[in-house]
Amino acid sequence: MASTLSCSASDLIPLLSGGANATAAAAAAEFICGRFETISGKFTDASYAIDNTYLLFSAYLVFAMQLGFAMLCAGSVRAKNTMNIMLTNVIDAAAGGLFYYLFGFAFAFGSPSNGFIGKHFFAMSGFPKASFDYPYFLYQWTFAIAAAGITSGSIAERTQFVAYLIYSSFLTGLVYPIVSHWFWSSDGWASPARADNLLFQTGVIDFAGSGVVHMVGGIAGLWGALIEGPRIGRFENRGKPVTLRGHSATLVVLGTFLLWFGWYGFNPGSFAIINKSYGTSPGSSFYGQWSAVGRTAVTTTLAGCTAALTTLFGKRLIDGYWNVTDVCNGLLGGFAAITGGCSVVEPWAAVICGFVAAWVLMGFNKLADKLRYDDPLEAAQLHGGCGAWGIIFTGLFADKTYVSEIFGGDPNRPYGLLMGGGWRLLAAHVVQIVVITGWVSVTMGTLFFVLHKLELLRIPSEDEIAGMDPTSHGGLAYMYTEEEIRNGIMVREMGRENEHV
Amino acid sequence: MASTLSCSASDLIPLLSGGANATAAAAAAEFICGRFETISGKFTDASYAIDNTYLLFSAYLVFAMQLGFAMLCAGSVRAKNTMNIMLTNVIDAAAGGLFYYLFGFAFAFGSPSNGFIGKHFFAMSGFPKASFDYPYFLYQWTFAIAAAGITSGSIAERTQFVAYLIYSSFLTGLVYPIVSHWFWSSDGWASPARADNLLFQTGVIDFAGSGVVHMVGGIAGLWGALIEGPRIGRFENRGKPVTLRGHSATLVVLGTFLLWFGWYGFNPGSFAIINKSYGTSPGSSFYGQWSAVGRTAVTTTLAGCTAALTTLFGKRLIDGYWNVTDVCNGLLGGFAAITGGCSVVEPWAAVICGFVAAWVLMGFNKLADKLRYDDPLEAAQLHGGCGAWGIIFTGLFADKTYVSEIFGGDPNRPYGLLMGGGWRLLAAHVVQIVVITGWVSVTMGTLFFVLHKLELLRIPSEDEIAGMDPTSHGGLAYMYTEEEIRNGIMVREMGRENEHV
Amino acid sequence: MASTLSCSASDLIPLLSGGANATAAAAAAEFICGRFETISGKFTDASYAIDNTYLLFSAYLVFAMQLGFAMLCAGSVRAKNTMNIMLTNVIDAAAGGLFYYLFGFAFAFGSPSNGFIGKHFFAMSGFPKASFDYPYFLYQWTFAIAAAGITSGSIAERTQFVAYLIYSSFLTGLVYPIVSHWFWSSDGWASPARADNLLFQTGVIDFAGSGVVHMVGGIAGLWGALIEGPRIGRFENRGKPVTLRGHSATLVVLGTFLLWFGWYGFNPGSFAIINKSYGTSPGSSFYGQWSAVGRTAVTTTLAGCTAALTTLFGKRLIDGYWNVTDVCNGLLGGFAAITGGCSVVEPWAAVICGFVAAWVLMGFNKLADKLRYDDPLEAAQLHGGCGAWGIIFTGLFADKTYVSEIFGGDPNRPYGLLMGGGWRLLAAHVVQIVVITGWVSVTMGTLFFVLHKLELLRIPSEDEIAGMDPTSHGGLAYMYTEEEIRNGIMVREMGRENEHV
Repeated sequence: MASTLSCSASDLIPLLSGGANATAAAAAAEFICGRFETISGKFTDASYAIDNTYLLFSAYLVFAMQLGFAMLCAGSVRAKNTMNIMLTNVIDAAAGGLFYYLFGFAFAFGSPSNGFIGKHFFAMSGFPKASFDYPYFLYQWTFAIAAAGITSGSIAERTQFVAYLIYSSFLTGLVYPIVSHWFWSSDGWASPARADNLLFQTGVIDFAGSGVVHMVGGIAGLWGALIEGPRIGRFENRGKPVTLRGHSATLVVLGTFLLWFGWYGFNPGSFAIINKSYGTSPGSSFYGQWSAVGRTAVTTTLAGCTAALTTLFGKRLIDGYWNVTDVCNGLLGGFAAITGGCSVVEPWAAVICGFVAAWVLMGFNKLADKLRYDDPLEAAQLHGGCGAWGIIFTGLFADKTYVSEIFGGDPNRPYGLLMGGGWRLLAAHVVQIVVITGWVSVTMGTLFFVLHKLELLRIPSEDEIAGMDPTSHGGLAYMYTEEEIRNGIMVREMGRENEHV
Repeated sequence: MASTLSCSASDLIPLLSGGANATAAAAAAEFICGRFETISGKFTDASYAIDNTYLLFSAYLVFAMQLGFAMLCAGSVRAKNTMNIMLTNVIDAAAGGLFYYLFGFAFAFGSPSNGFIGKHFFAMSGFPKASFDYPYFLYQWTFAIAAAGITSGSIAERTQFVAYLIYSSFLTGLVYPIVSHWFWSSDGWASPARADNLLFQTGVIDFAGSGVVHMVGGIAGLWGALIEGPRIGRFENRGKPVTLRGHSATLVVLGTFLLWFGWYGFNPGSFAIINKSYGTSPGSSFYGQWSAVGRTAVTTTLAGCTAALTTLFGKRLIDGYWNVTDVCNGLLGGFAAITGGCSVVEPWAAVICGFVAAWVLMGFNKLADKLRYDDPLEAAQLHGGCGAWGIIFTGLFADKTYVSEIFGGDPNRPYGLLMGGGWRLLAAHVVQIVVITGWVSVTMGTLFFVLHKLELLRIPSEDEIAGMDPTSHGGLAYMYTEEEIRNGIMVREMGRENEHV
Repeated sequence: MASTLSCSASDLIPLLSGGANATAAAAAAEFICGRFETISGKFTDASYAIDNTYLLFSAYLVFAMQLGFAMLCAGSVRAKNTMNIMLTNVIDAAAGGLFYYLFGFAFAFGSPSNGFIGKHFFAMSGFPKASFDYPYFLYQWTFAIAAAGITSGSIAERTQFVAYLIYSSFLTGLVYPIVSHWFWSSDGWASPARADNLLFQTGVIDFAGSGVVHMVGGIAGLWGALIEGPRIGRFENRGKPVTLRGHSATLVVLGTFLLWFGWYGFNPGSFAIINKSYGTSPGSSFYGQWSAVGRTAVTTTLAGCTAALTTLFGKRLIDGYWNVTDVCNGLLGGFAAITGGCSVVEPWAAVICGFVAAWVLMGFNKLADKLRYDDPLEAAQLHGGCGAWGIIFTGLFADKTYVSEIFGGDPNRPYGLLMGGGWRLLAAHVVQIVVITGWVSVTMGTLFFVLHKLELLRIPSEDEIAGMDPTSHGGLAYMYTEEEIRNGIMVREMGRENEHV
């Protein structure tokens, strides 16, 4: 039929005035229907344009999180290891780009699969497909590199760079993609979008990855940090923990805000599609996926805000002062927790999520100190601990309507236990925690152990004391001449800083 | 009617070939009309998707301004107060999130109201509505936290953290929302969007908040800084001002650029809707709200650029050198000024706006020095002073066509005095300046005074000399070991920095 | 015709039931056609809204690159020149805003032209037009200021600020706009979008500006740096190069990641329009410009990633350590190279592009050392060298289908030599390299030479040794009091950093 919308009355009149003339009627019908077909097609095109604009810019935001990680990590380590940790963040993104292109995406989304691992689209062969277009690949890549970034924090300040290259490739290229296949690919064994055989008749609702991203990165970090052991000086002889302060709280705050900024791509962006009405017919409601995307941004915000405030007052009580970097970590813990259920819970529930997340993080940090576990970025506690809480939280608070709007299927599918939705969703979520812990422990734990046995994991203690930057990276990240320092950087007395101006 | 666009000629033919048969005609009409209804609905849906994508990403940009404030403030204070000021910025966003959720939004946009204060949607109850969807809440929240961020700059380096918590909550939760209700809610008493009883038959055109956000934050800061008095060492005995330089111009530039970046969400984003034609019928013109959004980005850019250049040359003449941080402040002054009229003025007028804003800021800074008024971030001068100039500017230069396109209503509604639009708009804008100054003085001035009387406002002078970070926040933001400094951060001689590489 | 989509069966029935009645048929046809016209118009409007949303947010991202440049440059120079280099970056954007508004855009896109220089739209007169709306101006401005930013890196740490003001205005206002007219304006002499007289029957495909932006900035920097000569201490007496390390690798990484982030506006944004189907009729394919935009983001990513990894291992072999700042530069070299062909090559080709770009940069850096050429940011090598490689690369690897989809015209138009598309495209691209080199050398080379002769170019050597910040900008960028440093910034011993907490 004609692919045009132009409609000339002079063309249509003879067709309609044909009366009972079957030929004229056929022509009129074809004339009119052709235009409806064109219109339908143009809506499809416009939807692609809208949805991909939304998805691409969300991907760019998630990418900005990599910068956030880099700054957060840099500020949290001592000056002598700054170059090292920043390089790992750059290489996460760069190596992740290549590995995810070559096979990561294929393992994650190469359906049809056996439910365990995907097997199509290696090196993007067959791209684009109706199911996967380029923006989707980009979006998923930004997630893959986030997982590796989490782990690098746990093992900071004492890990050989070559070990880093190996585990990062393995995690981004294989371990993480397989987990994402299970929960996010339409035929993953625990996916809530499966056509049938849903795990506990629900599948796991891990919307943006409290488990798939945060727990994976956190558990991997846990094993790395456990096997390496604490940094020199982190625990005194009798086990008393000594804080090894990072060299710049400014970088910590910069990184935290950048992560917050990027989280608006991570969580609200995970819908992948925004032009979708929830009404019974087009235009019947102002309410649609655009509202759900916005609600997800709101729940994300509220969880983080509540966690930050809880940490502020909690730490004031415990430590006696208003702590900045702990508030930043609390905030991020709130985000890691809400990530899994962000799209299916009410704003008030997000406040609860954040409140508990702050205590989960403070509790795990206390426990880590007791167990002499050293994680420079608190990554295992934050992403592993708060991520696990987020998985439970979703099993408790997922809202019936939202679950049904987003995941469709059976209108009576299970939802949050405390919302009256029964035990099934929570049970599936407990399975997720167990399975992720098991899988990452077996794969990454083994890898770290092998690297350890091959003496490829930890740097020599003299290098650790001197710092990784001078020993492996050509020098420190900062450099001032004595003259610069005399000339103005260091000034003699308070209140006279500016006489030379 | 059928919610489908599929159109099969074989279905339509018998209907059209019915000739004068009324039943067939009815079926044909229903068939055709049903599809038009569907199309109309799909356009509505697509508009929601487009507009909310635009609004959400604008909100994310405005949020990035909070990071900009944090870095600008951090760089502008002395190293010993860095943790403190950054914590206030984080808590602005976090506490602002909770308070604005609980009642701020309700006070601001809870219509129908009495024109003074809103009274619906507490804790987002009743969300979403056709009038307010989640993305709109998120967008407004990012504005609310900006106001408190401005004020924190004025009282930096000497304010008790607990005082900060109190005024910030009060400002974000009550003072600011009420002002925004007056000018931005459709039934605020001075809103240009009221159905009737427009103030001076026009209402106040404060498009993105030169008054609502910048003056409110600036006047609040003015009272705080006045009541606290200047920092120790800021004025010598005979009143000669001493610049207490911030510890990092790099952070100032970083913050300034981030604010510039975020302002593209602040100003062009304030349309809230982008898919709106200004043509007489759909498709009749390439010109629509998308053009106006773009023009707003252009006027914003030009005002800032002109103010920066004016400051560059102005300060060169006055001080004898090319000043970076003053150029940054000049730039921001240009932005604060254009914010109110950004959408309704021509690009050439924006150049004038920025030029004057630079001199307004330099003038107020001169005056502040004369009056021994100490504002570490020049926040009252910049946001208060340039904000007020922006309100006047809009009253002078608002363009007839643009006012009518954006605010509709009476085609003969008043516009800028110098554009031939009469005195009414300018009069309304003078009222805005008076009313905001009065309201913020009464509320925030009183609050700061009470805190002062309760000795909750200013820190002890020994803490001020030692710095707030060591005394209230657990230590300084930066930390280097002697070894790191010997090992490379400080190098002996020029030109030999790199021998060890 | 009626501008409505509302369709009431009761209105349409009498019209359709008129049978062979010509008047009723005419009314029915008008009724139906009027609605199709309205629909067509609404699609046009929605397209404007979608495309401009995409274009504006892309412009904001490109603007963020200016912040990236500022941080990259600041970190790459010595502390004593930080204020200076950051001011040049702020002024690039500010002066660029005014000059591009006044005449830059007119020279670049003021068609109809003579093919050499545009001549309409000075000071945005005549804006908006169907061909150019405000968002397009904003987008092009962000490109113009990028070119000047590149050049400022080459001549950093030794150039008078007044010289900077002159060359920057000249470059942004005249030299760059003219080049962009040649290749990007629809009637530029070498544009691939010309209606006829295509250069070598193809025109130059420089999609986002490996030549127009990067080579222009790089060649301008080359002449500036050549005429100024190397910084004091950069080469020892016998010519042995001495690295003058920048003062903060953290800022280098921050800047690099921000540039990466912004490049997603630079390359994928250069389509300007996203709502365009490549199918034979609307809705006939999921594949359209939205896919091409995404593919461009992917090729950009892969080229940068590959270049970063190549540099990582290359420098490890050459220097013996894992170098962070060189990896950052390698990454940016990959981006500069892919920029020209990003939209018309396959992902696998982008990997080749990045791999070669890394070696091009390392090679040119080696050569620069041999020739005692000093470019503090490696800007000429990176943007000039890798930019030129990118132009060649596109001539070799441009894909037939992609070229045809994006540039249309003759389906048999030339494409990449190695893809079987013949020599024509490569020949046109060689012409581009020659012409840009010639034009920029004649204009900017002459300007720098004149400034040199007038003694306006290089600062006195005593100022260079003392640093530009204390001598021209009122003091250093950083300031700590002795007390702050004693009080915690500098700590005595390893492992006891935190006793006071």
